Amino acid sequence: MYNYPIKRAPYQAKKISNSNRGMAFEDMINSSNEQYLSRDIAVIYKKPTPVQIVDVDYPKRSMAKITEAYYKTPSTTDYNGLYKGFYIDFDAKQCNSTTSFPLSNVHEHQIRHLERVMKHGGIGFLLVYFNKLNEIYLIDSNQILEYHNNSKNGGRKSISIEDFRSNCILIKESFPIRVPYLNAVDILIDKLKK
Amino acid sequence: MYNYPIKRAPYQAKKISNSNRGMAFEDMINSSNEQYLSRDIAVIYKKPTPVQIVDVDYPKRSMAKITEAYYKTPSTTDYNGLYKGFYIDFDAKQCNSTTSFPLSNVHEHQIRHLERVMKHGGIGFLLVYFNKLNEIYLIDSNQILEYHNNSKNGGRKSISIEDFRSNCILIKESFPIRVPYLNAVDILIDKLKK
Repeated sequence: MYNYPIKRAPYQAKKISNSNRGMAFEDMINSSNEQYLSRDIAVIYKKPTPVQIVDVDYPKRSMAKITEAYYKTPSTTDYNGLYKGFYIDFDAKQCNSTTSFPLSNVHEHQIRHLERVMKHGGIGFLLVYFNKLNEIYLIDSNQILEYHNNSKNGGRKSISIEDFRSNCILIKESFPIRVPYLNAVDILIDKLKK
Repeated sequence: MYNYPIKRAPYQAKKISNSNRGMAFEDMINSSNEQYLSRDIAVIYKKPTPVQIVDVDYPKRSMAKITEAYYKTPSTTDYNGLYKGFYIDFDAKQCNSTTSFPLSNVHEHQIRHLERVMKHGGIGFLLVYFNKLNEIYLIDSNQILEYHNNSKNGGRKSISIEDFRSNCILIKESFPIRVPYLNAVDILIDKLKK
């Protein structure tokens, strides 16, 4: 018989909002997508980072070792997939500011891509994470395009947190699906059906 | 005034079927997707090859040079995108045989992926190029699953060219869209609507 010292920390409900502070937004989305996939809710993946491979070594017959490569600029957004028969396409953006999201974070080719997605009947959006406020919003392609065009015509170069709060869909962090953004997509789908 | 020697090869209609012999099937598909994109017909991309990056060097402040990386096995198919509001998902397979397509060319995870795509209302398929016969077929997820399950139960481990010829959709090479596979997808969409 062994006498184990019984010394337990008092039980504490884990504050989800804090537990994610150190976790990159991308990891939170990836983990949510894994949950969605394993629960058979949606089929959404992050695209691999595009890499230009210059040189490959074969230290063993069966193994290829890439010895020189460079990052390429992606031509689209990072995430796409399928949910309830809809083509889903989005990018995840982390924002350090507490007051606004700079439009310069969205590249021109991403704007063009989201425009095309919208035109061909897909659902495109950005997920914006204000990490210091711990607030996540879904902003749809239509809205982004409007802000983008407005800024090209001399308007604001950023979207204020007030605008997010009053015009975009708030996504509450949760568990085990950390960023349950498909709840927000359901709202977009309802709008599309009307 | 200059006198240019006039020496022209007699005009010959380029035989498209031969001109592609040296071109990898993947390049033919990529070039078709570029055409579809620039003509605003569809938004379909090849996913970047997934690479596990181990070491990165910074020879200049602004430049990252990847010095050690390895190829990873993709968890899905190579191509996906959006066409006429439908989520499109497929893989391109080149086949050297003139008699049959070995099912071992389709990995188990690709089968599972195509099954999910089908279940969630997307359009999934394989494009199979018999390069020695110069014949391209679209075989849809349903058909692949049937052959796959059949082979698991002791059936044939390959799909005969006769089966492709009688049950799959032939895609005729063309120009400037080398592999106009969306014509075949239109047939699948018509079936879905019925």
